[in-house]
Amino acid sequence: MLKLYCSPNSISAAVVAVLNEGVHWEPIRVDFKSAEQTKPEYLKINPKGRVPVLLTPEGPLTETGAILEYLGETVIPDLVPIDPLARARMREVMIYLASTMHVNHAHRFRGYRWADQESSFADMAAKVPETMTASADYIEGVIAGPLLFGEAPTLADFYLYAMVNWLEGDGVDTSNYPKILAFRAAMKARPSIAKTHADGYFR
Amino acid sequence: MLKLYCSPNSISAAVVAVLNEGVHWEPIRVDFKSAEQTKPEYLKINPKGRVPVLLTPEGPLTETGAILEYLGETVIPDLVPIDPLARARMREVMIYLASTMHVNHAHRFRGYRWADQESSFADMAAKVPETMTASADYIEGVIAGPLLFGEAPTLADFYLYAMVNWLEGDGVDTSNYPKILAFRAAMKARPSIAKTHADGYFR
Repeated sequence: MLKLYCSPNSISAAVVAVLNEGVHWEPIRVDFKSAEQTKPEYLKINPKGRVPVLLTPEGPLTETGAILEYLGETVIPDLVPIDPLARARMREVMIYLASTMHVNHAHRFRGYRWADQESSFADMAAKVPETMTASADYIEGVIAGPLLFGEAPTLADFYLYAMVNWLEGDGVDTSNYPKILAFRAAMKARPSIAKTHADGYFR
Repeated sequence: MLKLYCSPNSISAAVVAVLNEGVHWEPIRVDFKSAEQTKPEYLKINPKGRVPVLLTPEGPLTETGAILEYLGETVIPDLVPIDPLARARMREVMIYLASTMHVNHAHRFRGYRWADQESSFADMAAKVPETMTASADYIEGVIAGPLLFGEAPTLADFYLYAMVNWLEGDGVDTSNYPKILAFRAAMKARPSIAKTHADGYFR
């Protein structure tokens, strides 16, 4: 059975939701409150000290996007578009989420990754509403509606769902984003997402 | 013919090198010195104001990883492993490069993306040798040798090549990383990489 190292309210919830689309799997909860992800035992599994990690038959696999694509290729093919350009569009969003939107968000609480001074952390945190609003602007322009690429969800929809749930907390006025709100409502109506909320992975 | 918006000494050089593996293509140079990537005309092509952008038959495609995978699926299949887990390992590296290593590097000169104060920019820049050393540590542990996954290059090898060329400039002592140095030498021996250097995309 597939096992996933995961933690509530982290991006690993996106993988949990995809697994809940119909895979038999087992969670291994990583306790962020005791900083379990930074302990030597966990670093043996993922030297990057992050979640999610998928235990594959050939060892741990890290990085949300790589895990999602692996699941798409092996157990949940319905979430991957067949046309190469449609797949490219899916990846374009997924990589934006990983390299820009998640990074913008991380500057709110994890400025210590990139600086050392308290004054820098405060400066970074103060800019998060601006950078996350820019991300919301971009995403609003990408959503075809109701989901990212129309009616059929892709891996990117689950990844995006996890991230748009951060917007209000990051100081973004979501009332300016009707497509994001409709996207969020449409995704939340899926049983897999509802279960992921009920199990405490999404707030 | 495929057209790529690109700029010397940027991550777009990774895509240039892959195209030089054997695709007929045409560069559209974006002049960073005049900040062309921030001008309204360019923002119509890529609202994110970045390179690379690949012009596909169905419009501009952004994000290095998405462009590389699209090329791998359509014109250069030899750079994509056939086994799903091997593909996942390739993506694991590519997503790490996009979301962690490139982001570490960007804090040297582009702190304004995430903060507003000069003191924060200086603090961020001062930490880059530490974060890029951590990235080099991780990558050194991933390289099988001589290339990332042995003898056969993948899309990730070209992406990584662009990024390990930044290490010395970012204050990393590369003499501590024999696998990275051997990787760099092996890649540099490829005609596609040599041409990309000769054309000024790599320093």
